[in-house]
Amino acid sequence: MQNKEIRLASRPAGVPTLENFQFADTEVPKPQANEVLVRLHYISVDPYLRGRMRDRKSYVAPFEVGQVIKSAAVGEVVESASPKFQAGDVVSGGSFGWRLYDVVDANALMKVVPGVSPTTALGVLGGTGLTAYFGLLDIGEPKEGETVVVSGAAGAVGMTVCQIAKIKGCRVVGTAGSDEKCDYLRNELGVDAAINYKTTESMHEALKEACPNNIDVYFDNVGGEVSEAVLPLINKGARLVICGQISIYNSDKPPVGLQPQPFLLINSATMKGFIVTQYMNRFGEGIQQLAQWFMSGQLKHAETIVEGFENTPQAFIGLFSGENLGKQIVKI
Amino acid sequence: MQNKEIRLASRPAGVPTLENFQFADTEVPKPQANEVLVRLHYISVDPYLRGRMRDRKSYVAPFEVGQVIKSAAVGEVVESASPKFQAGDVVSGGSFGWRLYDVVDANALMKVVPGVSPTTALGVLGGTGLTAYFGLLDIGEPKEGETVVVSGAAGAVGMTVCQIAKIKGCRVVGTAGSDEKCDYLRNELGVDAAINYKTTESMHEALKEACPNNIDVYFDNVGGEVSEAVLPLINKGARLVICGQISIYNSDKPPVGLQPQPFLLINSATMKGFIVTQYMNRFGEGIQQLAQWFMSGQLKHAETIVEGFENTPQAFIGLFSGENLGKQIVKI
Repeated sequence: MQNKEIRLASRPAGVPTLENFQFADTEVPKPQANEVLVRLHYISVDPYLRGRMRDRKSYVAPFEVGQVIKSAAVGEVVESASPKFQAGDVVSGGSFGWRLYDVVDANALMKVVPGVSPTTALGVLGGTGLTAYFGLLDIGEPKEGETVVVSGAAGAVGMTVCQIAKIKGCRVVGTAGSDEKCDYLRNELGVDAAINYKTTESMHEALKEACPNNIDVYFDNVGGEVSEAVLPLINKGARLVICGQISIYNSDKPPVGLQPQPFLLINSATMKGFIVTQYMNRFGEGIQQLAQWFMSGQLKHAETIVEGFENTPQAFIGLFSGENLGKQIVKI
Repeated sequence: MQNKEIRLASRPAGVPTLENFQFADTEVPKPQANEVLVRLHYISVDPYLRGRMRDRKSYVAPFEVGQVIKSAAVGEVVESASPKFQAGDVVSGGSFGWRLYDVVDANALMKVVPGVSPTTALGVLGGTGLTAYFGLLDIGEPKEGETVVVSGAAGAVGMTVCQIAKIKGCRVVGTAGSDEKCDYLRNELGVDAAINYKTTESMHEALKEACPNNIDVYFDNVGGEVSEAVLPLINKGARLVICGQISIYNSDKPPVGLQPQPFLLINSATMKGFIVTQYMNRFGEGIQQLAQWFMSGQLKHAETIVEGFENTPQAFIGLFSGENLGKQIVKI
């Protein structure tokens, strides 16, 4: 068996390019005690990885130049040195190398839910779903009848947030970067309004029209201009959940723009950043609820699949021009 | 008896000027059932009143041009139509007209604590103290050994926050606008470091030096550049309490500058605006604790007193050039 891996060749300046990635032929590693050798089937590429390509403090340690890049993946156990798994098990985990084969600690793996597409373990039934679940419900605390605005609503986290907010009886308004995405949000996911930020002249006016009772919860995956347009429309006691800031991930300049402090002050509002791993001890609860909604058809999983390990860097780069609808996945 | 009042003559553009205020001779009003006629002794002038001089949504309704300005005050009951008070009682309340005599609902008044200066009812044992108490303890949640940074630390709220944070065993760093204020913070209130933002070239470097373990709680009365310097220094799980934004109260432009969202994101940090009235049902608890600290000498009250009703507008205007140390009060 021949192994391959994708390394960080250099730190991106601005939007990542193919030159920032390097393919290498390597050995298939051997699992040690409590480890498992997995043949990867699906790799999840996520916007937050851009932060790890920077040589700068973020919520997880940076990738080193010359080292393999890591993200969530799904694969099949080829060889197990753990009593928990055996060859043939299909498993998911949050930290696989971008490799054909990787050895992983068995404690960091879960068997995928049987009877559903294994890619859901990277989307609605995995870290993506949990991010939406805890971010919206624990920080956003949406109440029935409230208005929830979601930026990056056609991304993997965003569309899950939209659907959970609808389940909770909220008015849901999403922003996205194409008319197709907006149509999908309205027609397939049932959001009340969707705004194409690329073709809308005044986001503020568009949001004002879409939110006649103003905004109680803002779930932010994007930052930048959409967030600036939200601020003057927040209600008293509003909750602003900072889940991502994809609009600035590729910038090396400090983000300068409208500051939220005065809006938080006059509305006694809260803005909170989070990372899903802080809810680790409640993941069981989250997956159970997400799976129940998913099985009953209340929650849809959407994904964009690129075929071929060699296309992993391009799939990642495409996130920043919004090429994905839902979860961006690479099929090996 | 002749009454006088101070009205909003026009809405300020930028820093308020004397022309924005108008004196008028009026009648002494008669208390109706459950009302009390009070002769004012001390008027509290507060930065937040600037927001009410704007014709724009804030956390309290705007003042109307031609109408009397209102703020907290202390005075003596002259005539009572309420069983709760009798002539001679010294009372405080949060909403008196800027008048020599005013009639107020008896339910909105409290007798001042006996045996201490009545002006403490406008400072450490009044709304100011409660603002510091709930903002710091309920939102900031400082833990022993953590680092607390306070902007506007020599203002009435700020110096109370500094002292409570010291009582809680924190490292406390304050920013203020003069060397005298910084000396006071260090020598009289025992803060660990005080930074004169007017003479410090790099607030970021100065804060970095003053906060070797970075910043866990930021209690913000000021906004602007001090807040921008804080952001890159916050720790994971930091709490940023937005109590005031005096640096921008006189600006009509939306506040543009370094945006906190990415810093909140990578640190799972929280930024929260508040208004003390949301803690109304816990005021008793707050006053009791503040009074205990005050009586035991752990908490000091500082004030700057201007004499003469006619100097009320100037005392208010002086807040924006930082003329006050502690609570700014007008003695009638």
